[in-house]
Amino acid sequence: MVDGGRLWRRLSELAEVGKRESGGVTRLSFTQEERAAKDLVARYMREAGLEVSEDAAGNLFGRREGKATGAPAVLIGSHVDSVVDGGNFDGPLGVLAGIEVAQTMQERGVETNLAVEVVAFTDEEGARFSFGMLGSRALAGTLSPKDLEHEDRDGASIADAMRAYGLDPEKIGEAARPLNSLAAYLELHIEQGRVLENEELPVGIVTGIAASVWRRLVFAGETGHAGTTPMQLCHDAMAAAAEAMAVVEDEASATGSSVGTVGQLGVEPGGINVIPGRVEISLDLRDIDEATRDQVEDRVLERITQSCERRGVGFETEVLQRMVPVSCSQQVRDAVLAACEGLGLRPYDLASGAAHDGMQLVGLCPVGMIFIRSREGVSHSPDEHSSKEDCQAGANVLYETTLDLASQH
Amino acid sequence: MVDGGRLWRRLSELAEVGKRESGGVTRLSFTQEERAAKDLVARYMREAGLEVSEDAAGNLFGRREGKATGAPAVLIGSHVDSVVDGGNFDGPLGVLAGIEVAQTMQERGVETNLAVEVVAFTDEEGARFSFGMLGSRALAGTLSPKDLEHEDRDGASIADAMRAYGLDPEKIGEAARPLNSLAAYLELHIEQGRVLENEELPVGIVTGIAASVWRRLVFAGETGHAGTTPMQLCHDAMAAAAEAMAVVEDEASATGSSVGTVGQLGVEPGGINVIPGRVEISLDLRDIDEATRDQVEDRVLERITQSCERRGVGFETEVLQRMVPVSCSQQVRDAVLAACEGLGLRPYDLASGAAHDGMQLVGLCPVGMIFIRSREGVSHSPDEHSSKEDCQAGANVLYETTLDLASQH
Repeated sequence: MVDGGRLWRRLSELAEVGKRESGGVTRLSFTQEERAAKDLVARYMREAGLEVSEDAAGNLFGRREGKATGAPAVLIGSHVDSVVDGGNFDGPLGVLAGIEVAQTMQERGVETNLAVEVVAFTDEEGARFSFGMLGSRALAGTLSPKDLEHEDRDGASIADAMRAYGLDPEKIGEAARPLNSLAAYLELHIEQGRVLENEELPVGIVTGIAASVWRRLVFAGETGHAGTTPMQLCHDAMAAAAEAMAVVEDEASATGSSVGTVGQLGVEPGGINVIPGRVEISLDLRDIDEATRDQVEDRVLERITQSCERRGVGFETEVLQRMVPVSCSQQVRDAVLAACEGLGLRPYDLASGAAHDGMQLVGLCPVGMIFIRSREGVSHSPDEHSSKEDCQAGANVLYETTLDLASQH
Repeated sequence: MVDGGRLWRRLSELAEVGKRESGGVTRLSFTQEERAAKDLVARYMREAGLEVSEDAAGNLFGRREGKATGAPAVLIGSHVDSVVDGGNFDGPLGVLAGIEVAQTMQERGVETNLAVEVVAFTDEEGARFSFGMLGSRALAGTLSPKDLEHEDRDGASIADAMRAYGLDPEKIGEAARPLNSLAAYLELHIEQGRVLENEELPVGIVTGIAASVWRRLVFAGETGHAGTTPMQLCHDAMAAAAEAMAVVEDEASATGSSVGTVGQLGVEPGGINVIPGRVEISLDLRDIDEATRDQVEDRVLERITQSCERRGVGFETEVLQRMVPVSCSQQVRDAVLAACEGLGLRPYDLASGAAHDGMQLVGLCPVGMIFIRSREGVSHSPDEHSSKEDCQAGANVLYETTLDLASQH
């Protein structure tokens, strides 16, 4: 079916772009590394006979026309940006498998009724601006000018970064696709969990995507000399933040399904012998069930508020992003199921704990995903790994499903 | 007695060097700001008729000769470096009051038997290299080449910083003063606590200096995607650090006398949706009683070790600096006591919770300190404040005590 060797070779080549000593990659959005990754992907697209273009958000497309002119296209792909020191499969697999699908069609002389487009979305991870899924939001036409004000650690906004990259943030609206222009969006991705590994299955059918909320929490205490203020008289912002982090862990663990992570922390003034006056932390809280997640969030904020009142430490929090859980399209799930059966793979349903671009596109077209097995469930890490065989199996399911969806009239 | 108006004016002028929007100052060691502060102090020294010099560690001296040639000198002073966004009194008061004492002697035509030297020590705070009391260590001859390997956040070592500043780290041994070259070291400083304020006293006699230990604690977990790893399977370095910080607070509070502070925290990789793989925190733990402090330290490390074993998170720690508590010289305390009584001030003994350069000099000469009242005990903060009247009262006690000590044969 697809050429698993070629897919693996391209995965390895792309892993060289933004490579770190650890063996992982760092390709933040609108950087030279992301640009270089897209340039390499564009080359692969041309090798596959695709017509290459980029939109106003920097999304990269490779299009293969169908027989029905003016009909909606089937969109397949993922992203090539990464978190800091991330892995080589999260994103690249979906983009390169999409190209592999189109190239296989090309080589076999397969004609589809609908056009097939392969996409590499801009800034899915949100690692630079703590926002994320920028390209898919632009495609869905749901970005507001305010969204482009999100800043990176150096104070550069998304709009600033777009300009430095050669894009005009004023024109981002032009990236929006009209309703009915897409027949489906389908993404192949690594699971990033241990479910398929436990089931000893290479491939799974995604039923839906978990809902996450991202918050910033700020603790305002009173700075002072570390040696001369008795513990009871301290208003230590770091101690307040530490208690808050324990609350997050406690409340998320209690549900058995929610996951809470504090991945960022900033402290001022930051002297070894100075009581911290201001500490800022991030919170990533998610669950497959929105109500459960929101209950955890409420309890966490209530307990932190009480703790800070007791400590005489100010507490403020704001929502950076609030996602709603997404159910995958039954039509797409059925097509993936048929593909699995046709390939002799046991069909297996599972949910995604991670967010993906498809979440942004549910208003635009039917959305579906295919997962492949991740070694030990590790992701967003240099140790992220899926085998060559599983990548090929996933790409074959993607091929059959795309063929099915692109045969529509 | 001393000119309180002149002292206050100089404190205000020095507060302009390295001034921040907050009203506080940042004068890290071997920076342009510390250089500018020393240049201003050197100008004041010359106005006071002192002979100005700098040693191999960048310590700045202003000397006024005594009648007895070749006799040991009485050294008075403090430092002009600061923590990040620190206050205007911690350090500058002792240096400028020292100059005021010498200038008053000069204007009154007072001749002393022993020489009086005013010093502005280099890098007392340790805010840049997490080391501190560099100048006084150099004077005591206790610095090792290894000490100069301490690095700042940008990876520059003390030796690198000295070279950039125009000093030769190879020659730092030349800053060491011979035994019997100093008759006493005496420092006027703000209390940085609330004891004198509670006693409604302007001035206190320091009995000794609390002992602090500085440690670095490193937590090595497993980085991963924030959404796809169940809480029970996470090896989250940040959660481990949060629990460790709670342990520090708990154990230090339990003693009623120890103080524990986590003033620095670094997290990798630092993505909002990435489980932290590595977190590094600082620990400042101190007590007037060394045994109490060491018991707290032992319990803290034991509990953290247990917590990290339970979490499957690696834990390593190293001592950056371990101080022993210092008792002030009875001779100097008696002289301060007599000065207080002569000036009609109720003598009041108290200990120092903060470290000071005098700790480094106990092997070289008798050491003593005079504290003045700090508003609300606030220090290492832009809100640090002592009144003009209290500064003047402290400088008068310093004058009388210095006169007494310099009258020795």
